[in-house]
Amino acid sequence: MPMILCIGAGQSTSAMIEYLNDYNQNNQFELVVADHERSVAEAKIPEGSSAQAIALDIFDAQAMETWVGKSMMVISMVPARFHEVVLRYCLQFKVHFLSASYVTDEISALSKEIEEAGILVLKECGLDPGIDHMSAMKELDEIKAKGGQLHAFETFTGGLLAPSKLENPWEYKFTWNPRNVVLAGQGVVKFLQEGRYKFIPYQRLFNRTEVIYIPDYGYFEGYANRDSLKYLNVYQLQGIKTLYRGTLRRVGFCKAWNVFVQLGATDDTYQMEGVGQMTHRQFINSFLSYNPDDSVELKLAHYLSISLEAEIMYKLKWLGLFSDELVGLEAGSPAQILEHILRKKWTLLANEKDMVVMWHRFVYDLEGQRKTHHSYMVVEGKNATQTAISDTVGLPLGIVARMLFEGKINLRGLHRPILPEIYAPVLAELQAHGVTFVRTEV
Amino acid sequence: MPMILCIGAGQSTSAMIEYLNDYNQNNQFELVVADHERSVAEAKIPEGSSAQAIALDIFDAQAMETWVGKSMMVISMVPARFHEVVLRYCLQFKVHFLSASYVTDEISALSKEIEEAGILVLKECGLDPGIDHMSAMKELDEIKAKGGQLHAFETFTGGLLAPSKLENPWEYKFTWNPRNVVLAGQGVVKFLQEGRYKFIPYQRLFNRTEVIYIPDYGYFEGYANRDSLKYLNVYQLQGIKTLYRGTLRRVGFCKAWNVFVQLGATDDTYQMEGVGQMTHRQFINSFLSYNPDDSVELKLAHYLSISLEAEIMYKLKWLGLFSDELVGLEAGSPAQILEHILRKKWTLLANEKDMVVMWHRFVYDLEGQRKTHHSYMVVEGKNATQTAISDTVGLPLGIVARMLFEGKINLRGLHRPILPEIYAPVLAELQAHGVTFVRTEV
Repeated sequence: MPMILCIGAGQSTSAMIEYLNDYNQNNQFELVVADHERSVAEAKIPEGSSAQAIALDIFDAQAMETWVGKSMMVISMVPARFHEVVLRYCLQFKVHFLSASYVTDEISALSKEIEEAGILVLKECGLDPGIDHMSAMKELDEIKAKGGQLHAFETFTGGLLAPSKLENPWEYKFTWNPRNVVLAGQGVVKFLQEGRYKFIPYQRLFNRTEVIYIPDYGYFEGYANRDSLKYLNVYQLQGIKTLYRGTLRRVGFCKAWNVFVQLGATDDTYQMEGVGQMTHRQFINSFLSYNPDDSVELKLAHYLSISLEAEIMYKLKWLGLFSDELVGLEAGSPAQILEHILRKKWTLLANEKDMVVMWHRFVYDLEGQRKTHHSYMVVEGKNATQTAISDTVGLPLGIVARMLFEGKINLRGLHRPILPEIYAPVLAELQAHGVTFVRTEV
Repeated sequence: MPMILCIGAGQSTSAMIEYLNDYNQNNQFELVVADHERSVAEAKIPEGSSAQAIALDIFDAQAMETWVGKSMMVISMVPARFHEVVLRYCLQFKVHFLSASYVTDEISALSKEIEEAGILVLKECGLDPGIDHMSAMKELDEIKAKGGQLHAFETFTGGLLAPSKLENPWEYKFTWNPRNVVLAGQGVVKFLQEGRYKFIPYQRLFNRTEVIYIPDYGYFEGYANRDSLKYLNVYQLQGIKTLYRGTLRRVGFCKAWNVFVQLGATDDTYQMEGVGQMTHRQFINSFLSYNPDDSVELKLAHYLSISLEAEIMYKLKWLGLFSDELVGLEAGSPAQILEHILRKKWTLLANEKDMVVMWHRFVYDLEGQRKTHHSYMVVEGKNATQTAISDTVGLPLGIVARMLFEGKINLRGLHRPILPEIYAPVLAELQAHGVTFVRTEV
């Protein structure tokens, strides 16, 4: 019986396994979920499923040869830096390879070997990257097909808290890797606006936001996400005047987050002194000037040139940043300490739901007329475990795995899901599972 | 005849060679100046001198063995990263080694070998590090000797333009490595204030300045310089409440420099697009939001929340930053492009003089009383070639070389010039050459 091997059983594995399991009621294939810890894999398998959980160490060559050797495809859910290890076994045994993570330079360098092996290596097939590629390329290809000339493309994605009555002035909690959220925006930010290259330094990034409206969900704000120019080639958009990729938050989030940036509290390049005895309040104070006669609150408000009664100050207070509670770490960089403090309030409660929002804007010229339309998607999570973000990362992989098993994908070589033969059926199947894009003409 | 070998004939070699040459009128030793290019070495030798210029490649093992092998000491003036290469030959042939550059971890790791070779390796023996160590330790040792308990130590050094009638609103030009000036302040900034650890992020560094007054020279401003905490051990200051190392500029410099920081124009981590066709004005505009109806000047003033008529705007205009002149580079990071633009106005003219300023503040308790005194030094350059900064970097090395030749230094092993047997005679000799510290009780 053909075997589908999933290596790594992290958060987004559940939705993918569930999808494949539902499809596999007649046991057309063997489904094996592997993790370093067998119990972790076991926990991801639905009750009554025929899927098998195993312990597998990706650095154990003999075990990898055994398991990859008898698979028809591997879905690699290991941490990003380990994908290449897994891919090498897929090359050796000519086994297809699917993953949600980015195409790195190391993976690109293997493209000739991949072609020679005659396998499909599909990367960036999760949410972002993944569903963003598919939903954008569908619209871009349609515009090109009817003779439209692209003028601008903007795309935003965000993982946030679903609307609720729970009081949380940030309307945000961690729903994905908290460390990446704390470090977000560090490094180069480049984009293209009306034909001009634009650059934003980290210390200004959270001040330069755009406001976006999504029907039924209201207003969001977006900030620029890394190097948008890389997508000129990926999306075949050479000659476009505006190209901007961004991250979505609720309105007001960025101005408050900017406090941490301005303090230097997101710096991950050095270790702080005296962390063991440090309180939340002292953490904030260590970035402010010395003046024992002034309160930390006043010094901070002054530093930021805002009122003591500003909404920003309330957001910080809600997080407990002025409290005398011990941080609870023995050592750490500012970013590590900040993450630790934020986790105390920004961890989903069992009854809380997250939300994934994606929004694209297309501007193009057609028959002498300038046209604009938007395409957006909102997915709410079920609870703190079955989150919208983990579901939307895992589902596209499950769908592609099924299609590949059914022989409906004949593509071989290294790819992103930007070709119609992938994105069209995957988007249709996603829609059947509640991941729906709405198009609005402007 | 004993030989003193100077390897590397950069800017600060002149003062050092001149000093040694003046002393060597009776040819007690052979003085050899080596550089990769013989002509560069030749140019540093005063007329009528018996010193010899040679071509020497530090990666030519045979040549190095020949020349280092017959020397009694080497003065290493090579770029910082090459000192270890030179030092290894000194270890092999048991030849003393002097340099102005920092003790790195790689050099520290050799301290046992250095001790076993029975040689003196004296590093950080230029201006900053160098004269700062010597002048500070002299005062610190005196305070300790009379039973004082150190409460605070602050030290500032700056290389600036000497007062002149030439109109330059920055009162500044490059007098040392321009690249280091453009990148200054990037990385961690830590210090100790009244017993509290304080941290300043790069984007706030040039806003958090201290004002310092120096008799006859007026007001300066200082910003914090990297990790001051490292000096707790170097200066044996454990238990001190305030420890702050800073860099001096003229008042108003930092607020204007902060414009470049806020724009992201000092970023050295990525390459910009379209540099070949870029004007000064476009360089600035690429960091500002897109709005073709507004001028770059207005967008910048708005971005910085300052008036169009502010002194800062005048400083930028004086630099030609709003002009349509081409940058004149084919590629570069923001920092490289900024450096290139700044060099057009910030290069010393033949008739201009630089100035080095050093200022220390000591606060201590003695017999129940809190006492404060300052110690400062100002040296003006002679012209655009014989600058104060190159003279004060080279002179301490020349003096130590002479003392070592005369057998007046018996210290062996790896050292900084923080021991009285080095700093006392060197400071006395520096004074005879116009490098004089003034002490003021407060």
